[in-house]
Amino acid sequence: MDNKGHHISQQFDAELEKIRNHVLAMGGLVEEQIRNAILSLTENDAQLAEKVIENDFKVNAHEVEIDEECSQIIAKRQPAASDLRLVVAVIKTITDLERIGDQAERIARMAIRLSEMERPKNQYVELKNIGEHVASMVHDTLDAFARMDVEAAVKIAREDLKVDTEYDGIMRQALTFMMEDPRSITRMLDVMWTARAIERIGDHSKNICEYIVYLVKGKDVRHTSLERMEKEAKR
Amino acid sequence: MDNKGHHISQQFDAELEKIRNHVLAMGGLVEEQIRNAILSLTENDAQLAEKVIENDFKVNAHEVEIDEECSQIIAKRQPAASDLRLVVAVIKTITDLERIGDQAERIARMAIRLSEMERPKNQYVELKNIGEHVASMVHDTLDAFARMDVEAAVKIAREDLKVDTEYDGIMRQALTFMMEDPRSITRMLDVMWTARAIERIGDHSKNICEYIVYLVKGKDVRHTSLERMEKEAKR
Repeated sequence: MDNKGHHISQQFDAELEKIRNHVLAMGGLVEEQIRNAILSLTENDAQLAEKVIENDFKVNAHEVEIDEECSQIIAKRQPAASDLRLVVAVIKTITDLERIGDQAERIARMAIRLSEMERPKNQYVELKNIGEHVASMVHDTLDAFARMDVEAAVKIAREDLKVDTEYDGIMRQALTFMMEDPRSITRMLDVMWTARAIERIGDHSKNICEYIVYLVKGKDVRHTSLERMEKEAKR
Repeated sequence: MDNKGHHISQQFDAELEKIRNHVLAMGGLVEEQIRNAILSLTENDAQLAEKVIENDFKVNAHEVEIDEECSQIIAKRQPAASDLRLVVAVIKTITDLERIGDQAERIARMAIRLSEMERPKNQYVELKNIGEHVASMVHDTLDAFARMDVEAAVKIAREDLKVDTEYDGIMRQALTFMMEDPRSITRMLDVMWTARAIERIGDHSKNICEYIVYLVKGKDVRHTSLERMEKEAKR
């Protein structure tokens, strides 16, 4: 490669690196939003919940900025197929991160509503557990993204099955409560919506893990079974 | 422009046109999935619901194919900024279409569950109304996409506010039912999940409308108020 080509390629790598770092920064903020949303719920801290709701615009701003960076890099650099895959994966990843942010905001809104109602003795420990579970999933997903670690991505996708099981348990329990004590219906519905929002975060994490596998392996594993994803990862 | 340039540009336009048509075909299928899902619910037709569930893989397949077409066109044609915006808008649009498809599948699953329970005299007319409302929104969104009609896109986005109001009414009614007759809780929960899935389709339609405004106006209107979107559309 001649000097000029080398120079351009270095600049290009630096720009890609910048986008990747921007995604990780956005991801870090989203993770913080989830953790604070869950905390506001279990610690009965409506003020913290308000902060989460206010901060959602920051998540949205990151998405718009990174989209713009991606468009610019494609227009300017005409990237080759493999780099292009990275850019497309980034565009899709930040869409999911933004929606995780929306769910965090939703959890915070529920935390405020629940703070105005009678509280159970266990302070919603089951929501705390599933909430911490998905927050860790998001954390690990960002790690896998940073290291382009396919095996980790597949492992996290598998973790989502456990979240679904936890979610089913919470829903069953809330339903039982409602039937036993109809006065708890309004509150239990809010618990259900919260559990659903948390479960959706797990789904979005799983989506991002699939983009990582697609990115590294070049095979589209979306809409395929976990077993096939695992097979692809091992190739 | 020399002859060769002209020739390439014609080929490029034809490829872009092909992608646009593919998006419209995917959208047509998604609209059919919504209408059948709602029909299966209100006509108590579990067989039709099964068909909707089975057909979701077709929606997914479209998404994967169009993604691939978009990646190829970027890699091969190095499109200029405005064409690139179209490709990025397509990548985002099909993500939302795919998720609308998921919601249609979810409605069909609820239709099967509800078909096994006692039915209200009105045959869930309120779900039928809101369901037809969002199906029309999706139809109009695809029209606006085909004609790149910004004013129509803004009008549809405004329509989503009405869907949200209908949704709130259904939720309140279901809650009242639950409290009055705790034996109806399980069934009313399914009604609520169905209403939520329908309402989410409205949100995804609105997302697509925002991409259209972005595409034509070059301004990112996501995460901004409807008022600002309307102002942008009029410029």
